[in-house]
Amino acid sequence: MVVILENNATEQQIENIVKHLEDYGFQIHRSSGVQRTIIGAIGVKPGFDTRKVKILDGVSDVYRVTAPFKLASRSFQEGNTIIKVKDVEIGGTSIAMMAGPCSVESEDQIFRLAKVVAESGSKILRGGAFKPRSSPYSFQGMGEEGLKLMRAAADEYGLIVITEVMEISQIELIEKYADIFQVGARNMQNFSLIRELGKTSTPIMLKRGLSATIEEWLMSAEYMLAQGNKDIMLCERGIRTFETYTRNTFDLSAIPVVHKKSHLPVVADPSHATGFRDQVAPMARAAVAAGADSIMIEIHDDPENAMSDGPQALLPEEYKTLVQELNLIANAIGRKLL
Amino acid sequence: MVVILENNATEQQIENIVKHLEDYGFQIHRSSGVQRTIIGAIGVKPGFDTRKVKILDGVSDVYRVTAPFKLASRSFQEGNTIIKVKDVEIGGTSIAMMAGPCSVESEDQIFRLAKVVAESGSKILRGGAFKPRSSPYSFQGMGEEGLKLMRAAADEYGLIVITEVMEISQIELIEKYADIFQVGARNMQNFSLIRELGKTSTPIMLKRGLSATIEEWLMSAEYMLAQGNKDIMLCERGIRTFETYTRNTFDLSAIPVVHKKSHLPVVADPSHATGFRDQVAPMARAAVAAGADSIMIEIHDDPENAMSDGPQALLPEEYKTLVQELNLIANAIGRKLL
Amino acid sequence: MVVILENNATEQQIENIVKHLEDYGFQIHRSSGVQRTIIGAIGVKPGFDTRKVKILDGVSDVYRVTAPFKLASRSFQEGNTIIKVKDVEIGGTSIAMMAGPCSVESEDQIFRLAKVVAESGSKILRGGAFKPRSSPYSFQGMGEEGLKLMRAAADEYGLIVITEVMEISQIELIEKYADIFQVGARNMQNFSLIRELGKTSTPIMLKRGLSATIEEWLMSAEYMLAQGNKDIMLCERGIRTFETYTRNTFDLSAIPVVHKKSHLPVVADPSHATGFRDQVAPMARAAVAAGADSIMIEIHDDPENAMSDGPQALLPEEYKTLVQELNLIANAIGRKLL
Amino acid sequence: MVVILENNATEQQIENIVKHLEDYGFQIHRSSGVQRTIIGAIGVKPGFDTRKVKILDGVSDVYRVTAPFKLASRSFQEGNTIIKVKDVEIGGTSIAMMAGPCSVESEDQIFRLAKVVAESGSKILRGGAFKPRSSPYSFQGMGEEGLKLMRAAADEYGLIVITEVMEISQIELIEKYADIFQVGARNMQNFSLIRELGKTSTPIMLKRGLSATIEEWLMSAEYMLAQGNKDIMLCERGIRTFETYTRNTFDLSAIPVVHKKSHLPVVADPSHATGFRDQVAPMARAAVAAGADSIMIEIHDDPENAMSDGPQALLPEEYKTLVQELNLIANAIGRKLL
Repeated sequence: MVVILENNATEQQIENIVKHLEDYGFQIHRSSGVQRTIIGAIGVKPGFDTRKVKILDGVSDVYRVTAPFKLASRSFQEGNTIIKVKDVEIGGTSIAMMAGPCSVESEDQIFRLAKVVAESGSKILRGGAFKPRSSPYSFQGMGEEGLKLMRAAADEYGLIVITEVMEISQIELIEKYADIFQVGARNMQNFSLIRELGKTSTPIMLKRGLSATIEEWLMSAEYMLAQGNKDIMLCERGIRTFETYTRNTFDLSAIPVVHKKSHLPVVADPSHATGFRDQVAPMARAAVAAGADSIMIEIHDDPENAMSDGPQALLPEEYKTLVQELNLIANAIGRKLL
Repeated sequence: MVVILENNATEQQIENIVKHLEDYGFQIHRSSGVQRTIIGAIGVKPGFDTRKVKILDGVSDVYRVTAPFKLASRSFQEGNTIIKVKDVEIGGTSIAMMAGPCSVESEDQIFRLAKVVAESGSKILRGGAFKPRSSPYSFQGMGEEGLKLMRAAADEYGLIVITEVMEISQIELIEKYADIFQVGARNMQNFSLIRELGKTSTPIMLKRGLSATIEEWLMSAEYMLAQGNKDIMLCERGIRTFETYTRNTFDLSAIPVVHKKSHLPVVADPSHATGFRDQVAPMARAAVAAGADSIMIEIHDDPENAMSDGPQALLPEEYKTLVQELNLIANAIGRKLL
Repeated sequence: MVVILENNATEQQIENIVKHLEDYGFQIHRSSGVQRTIIGAIGVKPGFDTRKVKILDGVSDVYRVTAPFKLASRSFQEGNTIIKVKDVEIGGTSIAMMAGPCSVESEDQIFRLAKVVAESGSKILRGGAFKPRSSPYSFQGMGEEGLKLMRAAADEYGLIVITEVMEISQIELIEKYADIFQVGARNMQNFSLIRELGKTSTPIMLKRGLSATIEEWLMSAEYMLAQGNKDIMLCERGIRTFETYTRNTFDLSAIPVVHKKSHLPVVADPSHATGFRDQVAPMARAAVAAGADSIMIEIHDDPENAMSDGPQALLPEEYKTLVQELNLIANAIGRKLL
Repeated sequence: MVVILENNATEQQIENIVKHLEDYGFQIHRSSGVQRTIIGAIGVKPGFDTRKVKILDGVSDVYRVTAPFKLASRSFQEGNTIIKVKDVEIGGTSIAMMAGPCSVESEDQIFRLAKVVAESGSKILRGGAFKPRSSPYSFQGMGEEGLKLMRAAADEYGLIVITEVMEISQIELIEKYADIFQVGARNMQNFSLIRELGKTSTPIMLKRGLSATIEEWLMSAEYMLAQGNKDIMLCERGIRTFETYTRNTFDLSAIPVVHKKSHLPVVADPSHATGFRDQVAPMARAAVAAGADSIMIEIHDDPENAMSDGPQALLPEEYKTLVQELNLIANAIGRKLL
């Protein structure tokens, strides 16, 4: 931590500040210039609230020297985390595709769409059984029945299953059917939930909150890493800005930034980021070009009657075409699609 | 729902749009001008995804005619909801003060601060026993022991208790000790939690999410109202913007807007909104002037050693002075402080 | 400037960083802890781009030690700037009211409204003659004719005139008729314009840009102060956020923050911040309670036929009532209205 | 315009609303459902302030039926605008590259960098002679001398010149030396400036304001189109959000949205959007993949001593490598680089 003093800080104020820092357990290095004194406070504890120092008389500004996350940082682990789920790797050279419907709706539907996923050469099937909906009057998902159907469809076509977990009481149940837990954007800071998930050994995809900073996103990953689960992937799905022509603003610059700060893989979800079918393809292409390690796409073969998010679902043929386009872009940057 | 067609929409496109709307169960009113056709679709179901229509060929824009919330709206209930908790009313003419520490830390601490609250004439004691912290390495609260101490302190001084609930498994426990549940900003869209809380009959204060629109905030209230709990109060605690000199941007204009759209009372929390002690008083005064029905203030008598949020806590004497100032402003707008 | 090095920065990297800092003209203080080295670089030039250091190998973070503004800061001038315009003071104990129509529309209109302002005891008449409009098809103002009418109306009723200047070529013209220049939100960073305005000796009210940070706002004030004009007042008029129920988010927390960082007075404009008549009064009250030094209100006696911004204009009687309410709140915090 | 009435609007209120609409010059279509009445008001004038209707008693909501821009819209012109500058086309199948230093600094510098641009096969040289700087203490550009040097360098290497215009008085001067005017983000709503520029016949690149909505951006283009200049290109350069790890949030989703709403070409500027050299390449690749019609890149051969924005400038070799990568991605989506 670095403490910048006011130009006109008195010697008495400085002594008081130093005393506080020492009481908080820091080692002190004081540098006095002609105009201004700077205090380096070494030994900061994770989670220390720097405002405690900022409000002391004579203090102008306080800066943390270390990021508040450790296990998630590049300085903790230099090489990329590669998450292995059965025969699929996420975070390596290949770009893994995840696709499927927003919600599991019926046996027929999920088997038909699993077939599309497999035929496209993709390996990971997505689908919601428990749905977080902003309206209490909307479809809330098929529950365990949906999980069973998705597992059966995935097994039929040799796919891996990712599905969302919304509350602690669902963890055990979902673990029976799914290969990867998804934590939704609105639960990114549901600390009770993510702490419990961190105790499992199932890989987890953590969606970024609608207005979460990259630092907060990595802190939520840190919560799970601190409990022992090392297989955490992050998912950018759009942030909230003032713009109203788009549903969310897809923050692709988050991808290289996370790759610089952290060793964890980054998934991009252009379906939720844009909310409209015709914008999914250009944004999926952009995500691959920006360096995403995996792309998640919603698909549906009867989107007009989909129980949720039909307007952003690609049709099976559109998905197959997109996979080919993405492959070309992946090749252009020395990667390949999976 | 109103559907605006493109200038150059063909008759075939229009017929297709009308057919879709009828299939979705709407009654149709078509108005054709020289340049443009507008279709009124009457009978919208709550939760209908208007994007389903927006993506049809020939459609330019779609607008919902009704707010997506019903029970929370002024058109459902014209008069203000007044929530009665023991002998205190929230939402009436009086402005109820809530005060106490961020976290319950010890028996001594909570009794000393409960005394301050009572001596100031305030009736509601706040304090956290389960703490949502963005760092896994920070103090996470005293748990049930904290609840017991807070209840005892409140009983000693004739106060009402409000405290935060973070997960479904805590509901039953907290209900034994508290008079009002608090739902934190990061749980505003934890739909599993708020649905369960809606099944209780204990009053609930719902904090606004950091980037929640007023509509989403009211939708989360709707979740709880739809389960039968009528005693919902909303709490503005600052939203996230680009500004970095303040911790959050305290959105006081939300107060008159909520009062116009909804019958539910609005609490204002300047402590979390600003994050710094010296900005709490001016923002508390502004909140009363803007029409808040209750003000929540964090206080501490040894903020330097507080387990959490010490820098934003007022000292006991500062709180007492503030209460007097707020009383003058309340009187100026025809209300009084409680 | 403080330079935080990476944990694993090599000695060679550190030497290279030190050499760069010295070449940029800084004096160096190096503090090496067990884990990490911090370099204090004293003697920062205003306008130095800290990214030049941030991109050097081995650097983790760089923080400016001094605010980028000097003349606008409290450390440059401890006491409040009080701007005297004829017999009115802005920035002292009294809270000066500014009122008038959005646009000057006719001789009759501006005389009638100037009378309302004077009868309410207010001293400053606002009105636009050159209008910045987001549509090229909207009314663009009466130009010089509007300035003449406003000056005549103000003289008739003993008022001071504030009006907007949009481009350099208007400065000389407007100076003949107005007592205070207004710089609009969209011109806050029109550096050519504000530099020229800084060369005049007429007081200036600088509106905050729609997404300007407080620091950028103060930097724009610095531009004008650096040219010699000391009579700069700042005007908060709402910032842009994701919220759509309000036109802008009125950032009242900016008021105490600016007062802490700077000696310049702060005006609050609830009319533009909210955009709707029924929200103006509560937000004006809140602005006084938050410590604003002046309040600017749009009024109109025939708002339905106003050439611009009618929906946010108060009626004459509403304005008179508001002035009385604001007086009560001003008294409650030890100030009075002017 | 569509006017949605309150559920409980009285017949008298409805009549009053209808009368207002007719007085404002609209034709009326009234649709009454069981619960609710909707009024279609045909014939809206561009620039009509819908708040005038929104505040009438009995009105619940008002929606514009037509976009506020006309000349910039796809419905006005279906095919893409292709801007021809000498032998270069912007907006066609080819993706035109623009590159050069942030500021022209010396004859040597601009000739060396023009050579790099030409050797890379790019056709457009960028460089600032008049610089908008947020600090009054920063380098403000070489002025006319810079323009002369850039023109000479461009002529030597057969390049086109784009440079920024900051104020009306510079238009005539810059037109002598440059082929394309650049309007900076902070001047996007400097309506005086853009109106004058619209009267010229020189192509204009309009940067998006830091917090401008896409609609406002298109409205500013409309200002220039309405004056007769048809050669307007838009430039996405990052928007302001809450994120602090990046300088701005590069809003790539704006590219397909603008292409849907408007016929004008879109340039992407990853240098300003990210602010750091190591993020420029991934974001440039993403911009090509997202469908940008041109990419603007800052380059410098001695970025440590650049007068401005050195940290975001690519080195000459980095630029040449990037051009090759972008070519591969362009090919993958059926386009080619120029």
